[in-house]
Amino acid sequence: MNKIVHLDEISGVLTCGAGCVLQNLNDYLSEFDLMMPIDLGAKGSCHIGGNVATNAGGIRLIRYGNLHGNVLGLEVVKANGEVLDCLNTLKKDNTGFHLKNTFIGSEGCLGFITKVAIQCAPKPKSIQLAFLGAQNFDKILMAFRKAKHDLGEIVSAIEVMDHKTMEMVEQHTPMSSPIGHYPFYLIIETSGSDEVHDQEKLGRYFEGCMAKHFILNGVTVSSPSQREKLWHIREKIAESFYKDGYVLMYDVTLPLEHYYDIVAEMENYLGNRSHRVFGFGHLGDGNLHLQISLKEFSQEMINYIEPYLYKRVKELKGSISAEHGIGFLKKQYLPMVQSNVNVALMRDMKKLLDPNCILNPYKVI
Amino acid sequence: MNKIVHLDEISGVLTCGAGCVLQNLNDYLSEFDLMMPIDLGAKGSCHIGGNVATNAGGIRLIRYGNLHGNVLGLEVVKANGEVLDCLNTLKKDNTGFHLKNTFIGSEGCLGFITKVAIQCAPKPKSIQLAFLGAQNFDKILMAFRKAKHDLGEIVSAIEVMDHKTMEMVEQHTPMSSPIGHYPFYLIIETSGSDEVHDQEKLGRYFEGCMAKHFILNGVTVSSPSQREKLWHIREKIAESFYKDGYVLMYDVTLPLEHYYDIVAEMENYLGNRSHRVFGFGHLGDGNLHLQISLKEFSQEMINYIEPYLYKRVKELKGSISAEHGIGFLKKQYLPMVQSNVNVALMRDMKKLLDPNCILNPYKVI
Repeated sequence: MNKIVHLDEISGVLTCGAGCVLQNLNDYLSEFDLMMPIDLGAKGSCHIGGNVATNAGGIRLIRYGNLHGNVLGLEVVKANGEVLDCLNTLKKDNTGFHLKNTFIGSEGCLGFITKVAIQCAPKPKSIQLAFLGAQNFDKILMAFRKAKHDLGEIVSAIEVMDHKTMEMVEQHTPMSSPIGHYPFYLIIETSGSDEVHDQEKLGRYFEGCMAKHFILNGVTVSSPSQREKLWHIREKIAESFYKDGYVLMYDVTLPLEHYYDIVAEMENYLGNRSHRVFGFGHLGDGNLHLQISLKEFSQEMINYIEPYLYKRVKELKGSISAEHGIGFLKKQYLPMVQSNVNVALMRDMKKLLDPNCILNPYKVI
Repeated sequence: MNKIVHLDEISGVLTCGAGCVLQNLNDYLSEFDLMMPIDLGAKGSCHIGGNVATNAGGIRLIRYGNLHGNVLGLEVVKANGEVLDCLNTLKKDNTGFHLKNTFIGSEGCLGFITKVAIQCAPKPKSIQLAFLGAQNFDKILMAFRKAKHDLGEIVSAIEVMDHKTMEMVEQHTPMSSPIGHYPFYLIIETSGSDEVHDQEKLGRYFEGCMAKHFILNGVTVSSPSQREKLWHIREKIAESFYKDGYVLMYDVTLPLEHYYDIVAEMENYLGNRSHRVFGFGHLGDGNLHLQISLKEFSQEMINYIEPYLYKRVKELKGSISAEHGIGFLKKQYLPMVQSNVNVALMRDMKKLLDPNCILNPYKVI
């Protein structure tokens, strides 16, 4: 299942086996000036079938949209062994119910995805990166709104991290902030078709943010090696927190006005029972990775944290699982965040498609 | 159901009743520098609930993606009267199966949509339009590929029409081609955040196409009144073909290399039994509106045309219904284009969600 089936070079639609590794697909597409519409830290090992089954997000979602939009077709093996051929490769097709979408984000519980057809994006001719420092989260939000306004169609990522995340990276890796130390950092990437235009837009944006004191300092870079070096800081977060004790990782979405509140709130709630509470994430999509580092594993602490955190996220109209699904660990919280009617329909769908519960058992529902 | 429930100005997510008219939503959003991610000829009368239920496409799909990607949440009344609350307003939410997508494009047969939450797009600061004439369809495809390459992220529509469509518009309305007569016409719209940059990109593209003889003539305009005048020609097609006899309208998607073949093939197949066979559509999405004008209604002609046309579209790996769904008229052809396994699952879904067939009866399945 790790073979490329077909690439339509004109439309940019790729059809491939579900076992293809995301990075390998990107390498293949690169020769045709195309790229995958998703990008994840795990790109070197994750399979496209798994990405689709979990409705994976990642840093490019803000620009290229989600997998419900980009996946055009699927081949799925049903629990009874029948093969469901929804391997459409057309951008517009309204012939009956949209069966394929039932399986996107179903975490392998409703069917087994064997092939994927996906709309790829043109590879940008120009990529620019800005690494910015700000005084507080309100200024970050102002810089965010200005970026959406000034950079519009060329924005391809807007990531944020707090100073505790940076401290941890600096403590556990040889890397350090390229601009000195600030309470918050904003990373903005642009991707476009004209380098001169994109540099002009980003330069103007940077100057505007400095003039309005939305940001206190920053750098903008365009060469691939400089960009990689800066992205590396973001990508090394995951590696460095494994050295920071036992880290509980929460993946939530929150309305932007409450995005960072939850970090401060959890810090207060936990007091000195935690080693470090920090946050970073895909600000452009409201997706926060809230991390709580403990000195060692403690089920008691988990029981202390999770019901409180998930209750608060629900109260703030957020999602307790932005990218990572329900799986095994959050199954008990599903009835807390979904209504009885919704959970009953999920059960009915499971019963219809997998009556003997042989697909990814004990997960989700 | 025609009320706006909430607009999150920062994220651009609109929540509204299903009975809101698309144009009214656009007018409302305009004050906040936002716009709907879909645009249709029927915008003045169509309801957003209907758009979602039929997974409507339109001219902006090439830029802003489809409704499976843009609709973040739905409230749906089930056939048994239960209210399904999937009214999520977050861009990333993976808490259980993605129930809302079951209802997008289900043509009202699985549930009754009562509220919609949708990701809106920033209103562009600059809109440019090019109206171009080409010698043949191969040149149109070359100009199309060049547009995707040169204009990249600012392309917001790529429409095509053949000379017979233009002849019909000129015959039945006071409008005429602004650039003289050519076998094919291409309309390219760009939307961006910087007028100078966008004009530079479009100007360079136009000169490049002329130098390579992809196009023979053309105009580019940027003022709202000039743009409207040109778009008017495209929008008046529907009105003018009602004056052209009894017009059979087919809405198909085809791989781009076969996009226009079907028009020539149907013309040959019908010979002098038709008055006019012509084609226009959303080239950027492979969506062709194939029109066959007859002197008068004839069921015999419909029986002669449809089985042949749909068989050919299927052979060419296209879709017999790009935007307009299955409904009543194409129901008999569903088993021709969907496998037995797929049709059986559609029936199972219908049985699960509407066992007494009270929702939009006799449609789709």
